[in-house]
Amino acid sequence: MPYVNVRITKEGNTPEQKAQVIAEITETLERVLGKPPEVTFVVIDEVPMEDWGYKGLPTSKLRPPNPGPV
Amino acid sequence: MPYVNVRITKEGNTPEQKAQVIAEITETLERVLGKPPEVTFVVIDEVPMEDWGYKGLPTSKLRPPNPGPV
Amino acid sequence: MPYVNVRITKEGNTPEQKAQVIAEITETLERVLGKPPEVTFVVIDEVPMEDWGYKGLPTSKLRPPNPGPV
Amino acid sequence: MPYVNVRITKEGNTPEQKAQVIAEITETLERVLGKPPEVTFVVIDEVPMEDWGYKGLPTSKLRPPNPGPV
Amino acid sequence: MPYVNVRITKEGNTPEQKAQVIAEITETLERVLGKPPEVTFVVIDEVPMEDWGYKGLPTSKLRPPNPGPV
Amino acid sequence: MPYVNVRITKEGNTPEQKAQVIAEITETLERVLGKPPEVTFVVIDEVPMEDWGYKGLPTSKLRPPNPGPV
Repeated sequence: MPYVNVRITKEGNTPEQKAQVIAEITETLERVLGKPPEVTFVVIDEVPMEDWGYKGLPTSKLRPPNPGPV
Repeated sequence: MPYVNVRITKEGNTPEQKAQVIAEITETLERVLGKPPEVTFVVIDEVPMEDWGYKGLPTSKLRPPNPGPV
Repeated sequence: MPYVNVRITKEGNTPEQKAQVIAEITETLERVLGKPPEVTFVVIDEVPMEDWGYKGLPTSKLRPPNPGPV
Repeated sequence: MPYVNVRITKEGNTPEQKAQVIAEITETLERVLGKPPEVTFVVIDEVPMEDWGYKGLPTSKLRPPNPGPV
Repeated sequence: MPYVNVRITKEGNTPEQKAQVIAEITETLERVLGKPPEVTFVVIDEVPMEDWGYKGLPTSKLRPPNPGPV
Repeated sequence: MPYVNVRITKEGNTPEQKAQVIAEITETLERVLGKPPEVTFVVIDEVPMEDWGYKGLPTSKLRPPNPGPV
């Protein structure tokens, strides 16, 4: 019965990418810990860059708006 | 001083339903654990179906958009 | 598929009380939002009073160790 | 490597206020606990007043929409 | 800068299994979303079975203490 | 009514340090956002180093047990 919460900045993540993350994490938990997918939740939260602080600054200040690999 | 976080898929939950959930959970914690409502937070997060993974798939793939009882 | 996280201070909450909270919240979500218990998680976290800050102080400073109704 | 999640009601908090909160919490964790800003996340969640329950009611029922100091 | 919180019941998960989960989730986020491991946190919470409610009951009531695949 | 969750590795943080973090975060939210301390929760979770993954590894593998400034 895992509950997995994936928090990432909102930066152009596509539905396909998010579906891939959901599938892979579910598969990892099944193979490694024996957790059935039927009782596994993987929930993704996309947080606006203005609200995600890193190095004491909003990520929106650290990076231009276009998505980058952080 | 309970903090309760209710995470559900965003599927047509009405303000009245959410208010009912807030009221009932607060009442349960007061009656069962003696927690005064004045220091009880019940916070509801509605998560897009695309971001809630179940059985390794986004819920949006598991169900048509119209809300269903899951 | 609700995931409910109930965070409370660790103050003599009995297994019976916690089971009652789990049962009632599950029942509320089923009746009010139509969420089946088979896909409902209610997870209780008991936090040491030293780690729960309220009014700018650890609860352990606000109250004697014996459980009180907060 | 702290992860700090600041959950507040969505009530006119400005980007500047949120940036100030991020900066101050990061500075507190560096000075008090020795946590380097380069591995410190401070993530702000703004929750609609309708979804934040307090005293058994949605905050939207407790207060008029214009932001107030709660 | 992902923060991933993996919540599972406390049921004999070994350090090696948890390390494997950490490694695989980090690798998934790097490959699928381009998130560098140097800014990726994967945090596992093991919750006592008495505190994890499923089907309206504590998991400790649903299963004997020895770990099982749920 | 802020709820702030401070998640850090369990590495010799003293009650005094944690009380200082609680006090400072509460003061920041009062001064910057006008949030009264009487409705502000600051909750600290100390996570075993074995369960906190960074750079794809448990922190316990990245550092010797004695607390270090990460």
